[in-house]
Amino acid sequence: MQKIRLGMVGGGQGAFIGEVHRIASRIDNRFDLVAGALSSDPTRAAESAVELGISTDRSYANFADMAIAESAREDGIQAVSIVTPNHLHFPVAKVFLEAGIHVICDKPLTSTLEEAVQLTQLSKRKNVHFAVTYNYSAYPMVRQAREMIAAGRLGSIRVIQIEYAQDWLATDLEANGQKQAAWRTDPAKAGAGGSIGDIGTHAFHLSEFISGLRCDSLLADLESFVGKRRLDDNAHILIRYDTGAKGMLWASQVATGKENGLKISIYGAKAGLSWTQENPNYLSFTAISQATQILSRGGPNIGGMASAASRIPAGHPEGFLEGFATLYSDIADLILGKVSIENSLVPTVEDGLRGMQFVDAAVKSNKADSSWVKLVAE
Amino acid sequence: MQKIRLGMVGGGQGAFIGEVHRIASRIDNRFDLVAGALSSDPTRAAESAVELGISTDRSYANFADMAIAESAREDGIQAVSIVTPNHLHFPVAKVFLEAGIHVICDKPLTSTLEEAVQLTQLSKRKNVHFAVTYNYSAYPMVRQAREMIAAGRLGSIRVIQIEYAQDWLATDLEANGQKQAAWRTDPAKAGAGGSIGDIGTHAFHLSEFISGLRCDSLLADLESFVGKRRLDDNAHILIRYDTGAKGMLWASQVATGKENGLKISIYGAKAGLSWTQENPNYLSFTAISQATQILSRGGPNIGGMASAASRIPAGHPEGFLEGFATLYSDIADLILGKVSIENSLVPTVEDGLRGMQFVDAAVKSNKADSSWVKLVAE
Amino acid sequence: MQKIRLGMVGGGQGAFIGEVHRIASRIDNRFDLVAGALSSDPTRAAESAVELGISTDRSYANFADMAIAESAREDGIQAVSIVTPNHLHFPVAKVFLEAGIHVICDKPLTSTLEEAVQLTQLSKRKNVHFAVTYNYSAYPMVRQAREMIAAGRLGSIRVIQIEYAQDWLATDLEANGQKQAAWRTDPAKAGAGGSIGDIGTHAFHLSEFISGLRCDSLLADLESFVGKRRLDDNAHILIRYDTGAKGMLWASQVATGKENGLKISIYGAKAGLSWTQENPNYLSFTAISQATQILSRGGPNIGGMASAASRIPAGHPEGFLEGFATLYSDIADLILGKVSIENSLVPTVEDGLRGMQFVDAAVKSNKADSSWVKLVAE
Amino acid sequence: MQKIRLGMVGGGQGAFIGEVHRIASRIDNRFDLVAGALSSDPTRAAESAVELGISTDRSYANFADMAIAESAREDGIQAVSIVTPNHLHFPVAKVFLEAGIHVICDKPLTSTLEEAVQLTQLSKRKNVHFAVTYNYSAYPMVRQAREMIAAGRLGSIRVIQIEYAQDWLATDLEANGQKQAAWRTDPAKAGAGGSIGDIGTHAFHLSEFISGLRCDSLLADLESFVGKRRLDDNAHILIRYDTGAKGMLWASQVATGKENGLKISIYGAKAGLSWTQENPNYLSFTAISQATQILSRGGPNIGGMASAASRIPAGHPEGFLEGFATLYSDIADLILGKVSIENSLVPTVEDGLRGMQFVDAAVKSNKADSSWVKLVAE
Repeated sequence: MQKIRLGMVGGGQGAFIGEVHRIASRIDNRFDLVAGALSSDPTRAAESAVELGISTDRSYANFADMAIAESAREDGIQAVSIVTPNHLHFPVAKVFLEAGIHVICDKPLTSTLEEAVQLTQLSKRKNVHFAVTYNYSAYPMVRQAREMIAAGRLGSIRVIQIEYAQDWLATDLEANGQKQAAWRTDPAKAGAGGSIGDIGTHAFHLSEFISGLRCDSLLADLESFVGKRRLDDNAHILIRYDTGAKGMLWASQVATGKENGLKISIYGAKAGLSWTQENPNYLSFTAISQATQILSRGGPNIGGMASAASRIPAGHPEGFLEGFATLYSDIADLILGKVSIENSLVPTVEDGLRGMQFVDAAVKSNKADSSWVKLVAE
Repeated sequence: MQKIRLGMVGGGQGAFIGEVHRIASRIDNRFDLVAGALSSDPTRAAESAVELGISTDRSYANFADMAIAESAREDGIQAVSIVTPNHLHFPVAKVFLEAGIHVICDKPLTSTLEEAVQLTQLSKRKNVHFAVTYNYSAYPMVRQAREMIAAGRLGSIRVIQIEYAQDWLATDLEANGQKQAAWRTDPAKAGAGGSIGDIGTHAFHLSEFISGLRCDSLLADLESFVGKRRLDDNAHILIRYDTGAKGMLWASQVATGKENGLKISIYGAKAGLSWTQENPNYLSFTAISQATQILSRGGPNIGGMASAASRIPAGHPEGFLEGFATLYSDIADLILGKVSIENSLVPTVEDGLRGMQFVDAAVKSNKADSSWVKLVAE
Repeated sequence: MQKIRLGMVGGGQGAFIGEVHRIASRIDNRFDLVAGALSSDPTRAAESAVELGISTDRSYANFADMAIAESAREDGIQAVSIVTPNHLHFPVAKVFLEAGIHVICDKPLTSTLEEAVQLTQLSKRKNVHFAVTYNYSAYPMVRQAREMIAAGRLGSIRVIQIEYAQDWLATDLEANGQKQAAWRTDPAKAGAGGSIGDIGTHAFHLSEFISGLRCDSLLADLESFVGKRRLDDNAHILIRYDTGAKGMLWASQVATGKENGLKISIYGAKAGLSWTQENPNYLSFTAISQATQILSRGGPNIGGMASAASRIPAGHPEGFLEGFATLYSDIADLILGKVSIENSLVPTVEDGLRGMQFVDAAVKSNKADSSWVKLVAE
Repeated sequence: MQKIRLGMVGGGQGAFIGEVHRIASRIDNRFDLVAGALSSDPTRAAESAVELGISTDRSYANFADMAIAESAREDGIQAVSIVTPNHLHFPVAKVFLEAGIHVICDKPLTSTLEEAVQLTQLSKRKNVHFAVTYNYSAYPMVRQAREMIAAGRLGSIRVIQIEYAQDWLATDLEANGQKQAAWRTDPAKAGAGGSIGDIGTHAFHLSEFISGLRCDSLLADLESFVGKRRLDDNAHILIRYDTGAKGMLWASQVATGKENGLKISIYGAKAGLSWTQENPNYLSFTAISQATQILSRGGPNIGGMASAASRIPAGHPEGFLEGFATLYSDIADLILGKVSIENSLVPTVEDGLRGMQFVDAAVKSNKADSSWVKLVAE
């Protein structure tokens, strides 16, 4: 099968998410990583490239050079993965879009709503795909939940409870120079959202992806509990969906004891379901007046969406990296035209834009004493 | 040991909570049920009394007669358990208080805030105890959590997440004449709160009981999802505590798949903990940079409060009825003067009043487009 | 309803299982404890009686006097609970049987197989009931499992895996004079079985009670891991059932981290199920090619046996004491003739005898280098 | 970093374990799959090769040709993965060993003990590595358990309980021509062991790998429950370890409701631990008189072995494929000489031989009415 020629911006030695993207791109053997601007530090960039088997002439000192050079090559990259801190998503994505190269961008889409709007518009003008790696949507049992809801198994949805709780920022890590903490708590690099941007956007996307509903408005109470932290590390949000359903969303990075506690429960008139990221191969489902069922990835009564996103039999747990890999494979299918954008489950730049609208609305509501704010300003 | 002579109002055949109170009063052998006005239906009242071994002359047709007759007997009841629908709590409690008889009242305290204020004042004037059966506070591991927090094990508390989710009102049971559903969804009998009154008050009390914090203000988004239901069956509430801690409280009776899903998690600067009612013998505790510990009722490292509330060794599960029984034993200790009110963990009429303030504030906030409302009007 | 007049032998201050029996007898209000020979220490016996509200003249210095005196009273006890160490079960039960008083005896039935045979024969000659408190069989979801299997829901049974693991004897407690440990590790008081007698008999009974199968033969590897302990503290046993099903039984009191880990899983040609005592309100059930279902006490699809053994709604956990109380209520029904012995689920002296045959066969097999031994010698 | 040139025998379209090996080899980017004899069916072999990007001239019609051709090439494969049914392991491994090519062989090592002995001897004579993919030993928390035990955290080990239960052979799949079932239940292809060979060997290896103990002797009761199946589908085994520890091992492929239920618990004089494959990122650990701790992959108090086998932070679950990938990376380290065989955790041909001794001893014991059999005949 034809493999996609992939480049990467960011993700040099010591980074976390870059390596995740690389493993994800390899698992299903659909990509070749052939070019990179892996670090703003030239030495680290070069060393990282060697380590990854990228040839010296395709290891670039900066992303703008890379976009120009690669788009000029006959064997240039077809897609670029952007795995930098948030504030660089916009300038990097912009030059690659303009060079006609497909973009795979980590979340949140940008550091400001205005940039997100611009990228969305630019992306529409160019004939390229723009994927945002809301990777949790690619877990098989998440897709199973989406498929069951779309099939009406829950009846009309009433309540959506979602939480994404971590504890790694429960202490003042950024004061001790921890790199991941430093940029994530710096408004100049992360944008206006702390926990709401970093993890809240994942939760927000998931709630819409699974339920098929759209957030109409929200209210937020944001807090910064640790030291002199300038961005929220805890977000309490109420949501009203377009159909009248209601939800709670809790994002926190100070919830001591929570590692990566993403959990969603959806309750409808006919049934309810619940999924938790830390034990992701199972989906709990309860129809009214029936015993709770534990649906298992690869097991009985699993639909097409989950099966397509699954590699190995039930009881052999797939994890975070396989979910991420499914997203990459879906992107490969998009790029190769095997699946149309309408039929693809890959989160798009519009989904990225909604994430930025979510952050923007939450910040506005918080400033307005937690009053209700429309997600999309009218 | 001297046993307390107990009467009961409500709780005739077919009732749920009356039988719970009776079992609770028997488990530790501290009470004798000797009088009752068990039903407003005289036949059912009489039959119920016979079944319970109450002598005919102490089975009363109405509670007012009972209060008068029992207070006149030398061997009259020392305490009365009130297990009627909410709207009767006030008139019943009033006559027994005035008769100088200790009151054990189910929650919520009353059906209006005004009644709650009156009962509180009356109770202060009389030299009697007034216990409100927020029974979840008597689970051993709930008390363990309280004791650990009081001892500073969590450091300053940042976030309190509490949910109490059921599904028994996910369909329009009251339209089919189900008795428990009928009065709980009738404002004339239940008061202004549906799920917030019936189960939200439990959750609210628990959050303050365990954390030691006091709710300063809240905002609420209440909804009635089923049929023409007149009271909320789902409540989304944000809370600000007096110390700056913040919380979410979710109460729902339409959460399909949830049976009696009361769960509380508290996160502090030094550690976090979590407890769930449906598996109540364990408490999850995580200190920063330490592995999560599963504390077990009766097991290692358990403090005095939990031990005192426990009957059998670790691994032999105690349940809902034992927790309720502990409350009754604590009330016996109060009545017998074995423990002072300051040292008692029994929820009082003031706790009942706070519950009614909680309901009142939630209803007000909901009417005011979810704006913040002080728990105690200034 | 008529209450049964109950006496007790053993169970004075400081004992564990006596208090369990007393609470169990009170929960459903079917018994009055009116007489006792609560301790071989006369002071403790008297003090315990006072504490329990037993009148002075019915607190006996020894059980033989009690049997004589009570059988002579018009209002004498109808049943006696025997909660002594194992070696006293036989002499105590014998005198009460001979006095025509129903016997409720803790497990194992006796300290030798020969005594068990005698009690069984004596019990048949007398017109009295003899219940052995294999209390785990009275948990609602255990009975649900039995009912489902009896109804053919599992098809023919192939494999039964049962374990009962504790850790309280992982250290040499008896060397430090701990009373419970001292007699349980003393062959003169406990009999030939250590862990196999104390907890293995529970597991063995449960496997037959739930499955409806009968053990044909077994092989055993017994071990005493701690200090100079003279009785087994770990038992590894293979079982062959009469129908060709096969099983493993593990009993251990040195399994560090296990509190009271009784768990049984049964696998048939059509389905499998699993139950664990430490979270007893649920039963996991999986039919071939179907998702696993979590059946919940009080919840959907629960049969008559479990419902009859349950007091409160789903989600309100019942525990060890309620299970024990169900056994007491079932015994009351037997004594009052409300249920016939054929329709009763109460474990009988024959079940007690099988337990002793189990211990005997395990000891024999162990001595014979783990060879297969028939449960009932032919 | 230098990548290992890898070949594969077996694993053509429709196979399960071949694809697992390929993904495992890609995840850490340490191998290039460049040659294969992927199927005994030439069309399928060729098509599979194309799909995998293997060039036509290195897709071989049979493994013997492949061994000769590849060993003759300067850029020939350095290692071969053998992913055929059991009976081909021996002839395939033999030719590659003789060609001086490192061997990565799936378990069980061979279909007879005699073959296993021969491979072990041959392997010693040649200067090549021979890895057996007991992949469960590469899960991070399995290695954590091993490291903790080696460090004395459990004290002297007393009891090892291990089970590996599946349900996929609960019906007569082989009668319906299901390919995986057909060869696994055919003595000519699988060898003398059914479930004991297919999954029992995994369990057996794991028990020795984690505990550091060696099985001295065992007894077995094997059964074939389904249809006319000729090999065991359920194995009940007792084990005695060299130090006096004792264990139970249960392997079953008819345990309805079990997907891939591999679980091990080890109890020592100072502490106990438990790990379950279906939720593999956690390890439960309980020291005497301490609360149970839940150790989390990537979390606090994790040692070097687990950390080295881990890619992403705590709370981001790694699964079966990552464990398998760790084994491949460890093999790469061996081949490249980065780690010595003494310091490597890769299971060797000797471990494979022990697995075959285990199968052999179990079959012998079963035939001898479950008598004790030495693992290694003396």
